[in-house]
Amino acid sequence: MKRWIILACLASNAAMAQTYKNPHAPVASRVADLLQRMTVEEKIRQLDMYWGYQVAGMDGHEAAQYNDTLVKAAIGHHGIGSIHDFYPLSTALANRIQRYAIEHTRLGIPVLFIEEGLHGYAGKGSTEFPIPLALSTAWDTALVRQVGRVIGTETRAHGVDMILGPVLDMARDPRWGRTEETYGEDAYLNARNGVAMVEGLQGLSLNSPDAVIAEPKHFAVHSVPEGGSNTAPVNMGEREARSSFLYVFEKAVREGGAMGIMAAYHELDGIPCVDNRWLLTEVLRKEWGFKGFVLSDLGAIKMTLTEHHVAADTADALGQSIAAGLDMQFYDFAHETLVEAVKTALARKTLSLQDLDRAAGDILRVKFYLGLFDHPYTDTTLVGLHVHTDAARALALRASREALVLLKNDGHVLPLDAAHQSIAVIGPLATSTYTGGYSSPSAQGLSILDGLKQSGARVTYAAGYTPSSNHRSDTTGYPEEASLRSEAVALAAQSDVTVLVLGEEPWEVGEGKDRASLNLSPRAEALAQALYATGKPIALVLVNGRPLTIDWIAAHYPAILETWYGGEVEGQGIADVLLGKVNPSGKLPITFPRSVGQLPFYEARKPTSRHHYVDEADTALFPFGHGLSYTTFAYSDLRIAPARITPGGSADVSVTITNTGDREGAEVAELYLRDVVSSVTTPLKALRGFARVDLAPGAAQTVHFTLGPDQLSLWNRQMKRVVEPGEFKVMVGSSSRDIRVEGSFWVGE
Amino acid sequence: MKRWIILACLASNAAMAQTYKNPHAPVASRVADLLQRMTVEEKIRQLDMYWGYQVAGMDGHEAAQYNDTLVKAAIGHHGIGSIHDFYPLSTALANRIQRYAIEHTRLGIPVLFIEEGLHGYAGKGSTEFPIPLALSTAWDTALVRQVGRVIGTETRAHGVDMILGPVLDMARDPRWGRTEETYGEDAYLNARNGVAMVEGLQGLSLNSPDAVIAEPKHFAVHSVPEGGSNTAPVNMGEREARSSFLYVFEKAVREGGAMGIMAAYHELDGIPCVDNRWLLTEVLRKEWGFKGFVLSDLGAIKMTLTEHHVAADTADALGQSIAAGLDMQFYDFAHETLVEAVKTALARKTLSLQDLDRAAGDILRVKFYLGLFDHPYTDTTLVGLHVHTDAARALALRASREALVLLKNDGHVLPLDAAHQSIAVIGPLATSTYTGGYSSPSAQGLSILDGLKQSGARVTYAAGYTPSSNHRSDTTGYPEEASLRSEAVALAAQSDVTVLVLGEEPWEVGEGKDRASLNLSPRAEALAQALYATGKPIALVLVNGRPLTIDWIAAHYPAILETWYGGEVEGQGIADVLLGKVNPSGKLPITFPRSVGQLPFYEARKPTSRHHYVDEADTALFPFGHGLSYTTFAYSDLRIAPARITPGGSADVSVTITNTGDREGAEVAELYLRDVVSSVTTPLKALRGFARVDLAPGAAQTVHFTLGPDQLSLWNRQMKRVVEPGEFKVMVGSSSRDIRVEGSFWVGE
Repeated sequence: MKRWIILACLASNAAMAQTYKNPHAPVASRVADLLQRMTVEEKIRQLDMYWGYQVAGMDGHEAAQYNDTLVKAAIGHHGIGSIHDFYPLSTALANRIQRYAIEHTRLGIPVLFIEEGLHGYAGKGSTEFPIPLALSTAWDTALVRQVGRVIGTETRAHGVDMILGPVLDMARDPRWGRTEETYGEDAYLNARNGVAMVEGLQGLSLNSPDAVIAEPKHFAVHSVPEGGSNTAPVNMGEREARSSFLYVFEKAVREGGAMGIMAAYHELDGIPCVDNRWLLTEVLRKEWGFKGFVLSDLGAIKMTLTEHHVAADTADALGQSIAAGLDMQFYDFAHETLVEAVKTALARKTLSLQDLDRAAGDILRVKFYLGLFDHPYTDTTLVGLHVHTDAARALALRASREALVLLKNDGHVLPLDAAHQSIAVIGPLATSTYTGGYSSPSAQGLSILDGLKQSGARVTYAAGYTPSSNHRSDTTGYPEEASLRSEAVALAAQSDVTVLVLGEEPWEVGEGKDRASLNLSPRAEALAQALYATGKPIALVLVNGRPLTIDWIAAHYPAILETWYGGEVEGQGIADVLLGKVNPSGKLPITFPRSVGQLPFYEARKPTSRHHYVDEADTALFPFGHGLSYTTFAYSDLRIAPARITPGGSADVSVTITNTGDREGAEVAELYLRDVVSSVTTPLKALRGFARVDLAPGAAQTVHFTLGPDQLSLWNRQMKRVVEPGEFKVMVGSSSRDIRVEGSFWVGE
Repeated sequence: MKRWIILACLASNAAMAQTYKNPHAPVASRVADLLQRMTVEEKIRQLDMYWGYQVAGMDGHEAAQYNDTLVKAAIGHHGIGSIHDFYPLSTALANRIQRYAIEHTRLGIPVLFIEEGLHGYAGKGSTEFPIPLALSTAWDTALVRQVGRVIGTETRAHGVDMILGPVLDMARDPRWGRTEETYGEDAYLNARNGVAMVEGLQGLSLNSPDAVIAEPKHFAVHSVPEGGSNTAPVNMGEREARSSFLYVFEKAVREGGAMGIMAAYHELDGIPCVDNRWLLTEVLRKEWGFKGFVLSDLGAIKMTLTEHHVAADTADALGQSIAAGLDMQFYDFAHETLVEAVKTALARKTLSLQDLDRAAGDILRVKFYLGLFDHPYTDTTLVGLHVHTDAARALALRASREALVLLKNDGHVLPLDAAHQSIAVIGPLATSTYTGGYSSPSAQGLSILDGLKQSGARVTYAAGYTPSSNHRSDTTGYPEEASLRSEAVALAAQSDVTVLVLGEEPWEVGEGKDRASLNLSPRAEALAQALYATGKPIALVLVNGRPLTIDWIAAHYPAILETWYGGEVEGQGIADVLLGKVNPSGKLPITFPRSVGQLPFYEARKPTSRHHYVDEADTALFPFGHGLSYTTFAYSDLRIAPARITPGGSADVSVTITNTGDREGAEVAELYLRDVVSSVTTPLKALRGFARVDLAPGAAQTVHFTLGPDQLSLWNRQMKRVVEPGEFKVMVGSSSRDIRVEGSFWVGE
């Protein structure tokens, strides 16, 4: 009896001595304590991701049932790292699975639930926002942060702990289909949006029921694949990479505090990203102090074996990647294969136990941060309370309005006059409800046609052409197309005004949908020309996920509105702007080239990047930062103080914006910087600030920008980030090519 | 009297002690001796290049006269580095100017005469060879070496010591106008041609009357400017640069012994090449042991000040560049400005006297190597004896034949039957005598039309369209074009066969003539379609300096012959092949893409470079190494010995080629290598050998290739060049996409 009591006391003391279970212990101590209790196999299984339907049974992507046999087979007594792709995961189901992990594994390590949520949690019934390129078009980081908050709240309410996003790749090759997933072409704009989205997703504390881990991707320099073809090699010098592409991620990690990073598929100068020690360890962890974990893109580790051919076998592939700094595989290898291969790598000593501990520790640390050890179960009432609320829907409408860019307007067509005009809406995309890549399977946007109808406008509709599934075979004759075109022309002729909706069908935009041409389809172009020939007032509405080369239309049409894919109420937002109920305020986050042969074409280019051709103009069709309004704005009173700063100091730039028109409107003031003489080349015009102001007619507001080391520094010849003495030129304006006020200041003694 | 004798003896002893004047002293001693005698100003003036017409008086690019005042003003008593652009420089004039430098400057330092000679010495009356891209099409380094010998001989006969070439940039962006000046897209093919041309130009000894300095350009990685626009920034990782672009230069320096290098205009990852210490000093001199001198591209140093903005003033620009490893300016700054600016840089200590000595010493060393101090004058009879000889003309004809590529042939049209067919020749380029960029001002090619006429064929001609000077404005109506087209169609309809000649006009090809489209002009395309519609037999002859996107024609026309710009007798070579007197044997040194949106498209790409698009094929139109013959060849008996080698060892690969057709012909066998598993990614198919054989019908020949460290090495993760153990796959065939025999061998213990 006594002996039993003693043993019980010892056991109790042991439990109390289990530091990892103590919510009050520092996370680092909990991780260390847990690691020293774990077997090699338990550690390895933390590095793994399970497919949701493997754990709970596939049921046509519909609500899966808890299946004890499957859960037991998957989680076993070792535990596992994470579960992914579980739509629609009910909170209750997540809780039951989590309970198994907590109660039936040896150490009770909770599972991490991971899902997609690029512009809305990808589960059924959540709020669908505009695609990231459209969100970025608002130049409104407060909006992006709020969108992130909604996504984080709706996600965590479902028992999901981590979102695979945001995409922080800079879109400098619009042939790349994933351009729509990015915040555009610019390092500064992307960085600000990236920080805002990470902060929105992660909230004030990860250890709260409305916060999820953000996982910026695709690390790094993923978005300029050779030929614009997804996952193709990237060749880039370190200085250019650090100055722009890596900068965006650095901000998300150091300023935003992102706790996840996805390592990309591609190779960077001959070394795959998942297997790139410089990238994952030297830069990410040692320089930036990243404290989260690094996830492979889906199958990217396997790709080192099967496509990059830098590994001789599975153990090599995994061993090299983990040693380089990778923490978790993503469906790369079967679960048992992972265990055996990592053990083999350990036995070969191509992987050290220290690196295995680092990898498992990184993942466990994030689980501790999330509070999964301390309150592993999610309140099942949260979904009802916090998903697709009125506030979220209002935010989606605001986003869908701010995401619109008025590219051209001669003032005679837009805004439409709903009270007096009959409107011909033409083009099958006017009826599209597509909301872009990585939407919820249930996502349905309000179509443009329906949006205009709901607004009370007198609209009629004709398709005008049949979308083809392949532009290349589009040149041969399709007699039925002529009659569709005639019908549309007739409708336009009898209407007061025509809204032609053209752009990209789902088959030609998004991941894996790279294009060698940025043209509209030949039949869409033919329709545009036929409608123009009627001589009737006409506006083009673009629905697309990348810049399109619409040189002819831009030269001939009086009005063009870019709408991207605008989320669940896109049609309403578009109708509001077309009808003048809302004043458009978006600015392009990406340059529109005139032809694909001008690529790459982005604003922050170096002085010698000139795009001189004997057969093409040297200008863009629509420049970065471009966007018109139904009102006008004046810029005045540029002040820079002080006029001279030290290399570590900062200057305040202020400028006054006045609404000089007769409508209320929002203006985004854009600040561009030029480091006049520098040790290494620097862009002629680099965005280094922006400010959005809402102004009533006649109203004025002074906006302020801070220019400090973050804005002024460069990577010098010794690959150190420094602010160099000398003159800096400041340009503020309404677009990169519409600078209104200029000034200078000096760095130096 | 006695004192006078003693002084005279001292003077004589002093003269004898002037090591730099002693032809038997080692060059290094002569340079050192001369440098210590020189003033700072004398050294600086060695770093300068004078414009020929400034020294001898402009006379409408015709023979300039010796003008003592100008010569004295230019050369003064300090001497100068070099004189350039002096066409037509007579040998006698060169001698007179040289005599002034020898006899009237304080130290008697001879002048270096520099001229252009990319595919023939650019002076009047010299032999004009096909453009470099066409020379490379022969895959015949013996031919290139002989062409180099002719250029070297004809150049030096004129008293000229150095040629500004060859262009060793790898053409991986055909938008770039200078693609025509290159040897194509491939590191190995370019390296072999580069070595051959350097050896040809420099001969067996520079100190001989038929040898000139070769100056590979544009160092380095110049040919992939952003957007394909000349001199635009290049961003590339060090590994890719070393593995391909730098490799070509390395071979020219280490194997070819090139004594000149031209530093390029562009910036490489933020640092201009002229100002790039890593490139010019660490790699070129320290790693490769370069012993010649580095010349700026025309105005490239000035560009660091005016365009790259990495220098605050002229002294900065010059000081930085010279300190980085640049030796001679090229019209960057006025002569007196150079002197003052370099003195300023010395005073500021941004440039050291050691660096100034290195720069002046590099140039002087080359002058010693050339023998200019020892026999500064050129035998004036050499021009008559050695320029445009029968042998040179025969070589030009051989080159013009070997430079042709039969891209497509269904056998029904080509070869033409001159005895029985009437031939309609259509297209203004059929009458062109243009011979490509950097030709002699007097160069005239034999036109295709004249070549066919001289051959005795029954030819008639129609233009078919008017070349426009701008494709962009080409879409509006030109009523006269319809009648030209009708006339051509009528001519084709009444002829047995049509030869349509299309391609590029001089305004759209060459330096500064970059293109955003690779299409034929709309009117040329319209003509091609109209002629095809006649249903008559038709062959397309392409005349161009870069790959063109002729997807429709390639799908419809039965025969296509690529001819580039083929030198002084191009029309004869083309007629010979069209009429079957000569069997075509050229292979493409550059990939033809289907559309500009596929770029870059080259063969030695990494495994993940896939060119997958939703709107374009993933294949090239015509692959690298492609070229047909009027006969057929079989490949057999691939042998690799030994089957296993050490990392430092080499294997012999042999394969037997048999002419299985009924015509004599030449075949180029191409060997491609695949390093199956490697520490860094390597191309799926890298050219590592080629062999050209002439075979009578039924004849067979065994060709051999050596695979050693040069072919097998890669730049590993530690940026060391190593041969890694493992399997290497060998593929030999008739093109990169027509592999006939395959095998493997192993590196390792």
